[in-house]
Amino acid sequence: MLNKIDLDDLGIYEGISETIVTTTHGWTANAAPMGIIRKKDKLFLRLFKDSTTYNNVLSEKRVVANITWDPIIFVDSTFGDLDDSDFETVHCNGMSFAALKEAQCWVAFECTNTKLTSEALIAELVPVMSRVNGCILRAPNRGLFGVIEACIHATRYKLTGDEKYLRLIKAYGDIVEKCGGDEEKEAMELLYNYL
Amino acid sequence: MLNKIDLDDLGIYEGISETIVTTTHGWTANAAPMGIIRKKDKLFLRLFKDSTTYNNVLSEKRVVANITWDPIIFVDSTFGDLDDSDFETVHCNGMSFAALKEAQCWVAFECTNTKLTSEALIAELVPVMSRVNGCILRAPNRGLFGVIEACIHATRYKLTGDEKYLRLIKAYGDIVEKCGGDEEKEAMELLYNYL
Repeated sequence: MLNKIDLDDLGIYEGISETIVTTTHGWTANAAPMGIIRKKDKLFLRLFKDSTTYNNVLSEKRVVANITWDPIIFVDSTFGDLDDSDFETVHCNGMSFAALKEAQCWVAFECTNTKLTSEALIAELVPVMSRVNGCILRAPNRGLFGVIEACIHATRYKLTGDEKYLRLIKAYGDIVEKCGGDEEKEAMELLYNYL
Repeated sequence: MLNKIDLDDLGIYEGISETIVTTTHGWTANAAPMGIIRKKDKLFLRLFKDSTTYNNVLSEKRVVANITWDPIIFVDSTFGDLDDSDFETVHCNGMSFAALKEAQCWVAFECTNTKLTSEALIAELVPVMSRVNGCILRAPNRGLFGVIEACIHATRYKLTGDEKYLRLIKAYGDIVEKCGGDEEKEAMELLYNYL
């Protein structure tokens, strides 16, 4: 079990860390943006029913949390599937995991104490292995966060059809246009195309 | 002169990097959150008239851009003064600069090609020296971004008195409450107290 210091070193701090969660079902890997909830030294994942991640966690009971600031991966994994070539397979304790090659760092977890409600699944995450590929020094960029917020509102829009989410996406798009770099702007274009 | 690769290594990417800019006037150091604009390999700073940073840049023609994700420094430097003990003085090419001790990294610049408009100053930034104190691996946290957005809206509120900014600050405060860690929540409390 990793302790508090280790979790900090792996980029997962108190509060909700926005990660790309990768899961598998048989030989098929899936990626989706997902918040990892950390309360002191305990980690949790909350998944809404009927998503691919939900189904994979229910059957395989394992996930990988990938830490990246790549805005294009956030958009692509919100709306579609990543390429098979984006994943690598790693093995530990007789289990296999799919991680993102491009992540700065990833942590593989077993899911335990799973609780099911009528609309969601809550699992506690026990770290099994981790890898740090590299640490990227970077000032906060409002454009990157604009892309992440826009992805969240786009998911809500697809679930509800409520047009208020389109207005929020547009407002975050304006922040991306003003503050983002080329990658953030390209990610926002992709998001508009998916919608 | 630093090249494109160096700027990436120092955490300053294309678009606007949210940094804490430190300036001096005589022996007095000042810190304020400020965006560093990067277009290809050129860097710019845009300062509104009559701020301390504006006056210091006009007289001393040098700034340091400090890269940090510490939400409390963003709030404290928006509204008040940091402690003298938060700064260190560094010397290069016969010039002295004030940098933040706690920054992950900082870059000291000379300001050139300064243009004055009726309400602002735009300067081109020429890197003089830099230091990397350490790279912190960290997943994006919507709470940190919420604090930065709230600081921006708080500045606008103080300038205009328009209550729409208070509603925006409250909305970002809700994101901080949901997603932030202890430091982000403490920073938001400080911000509410300053207002």
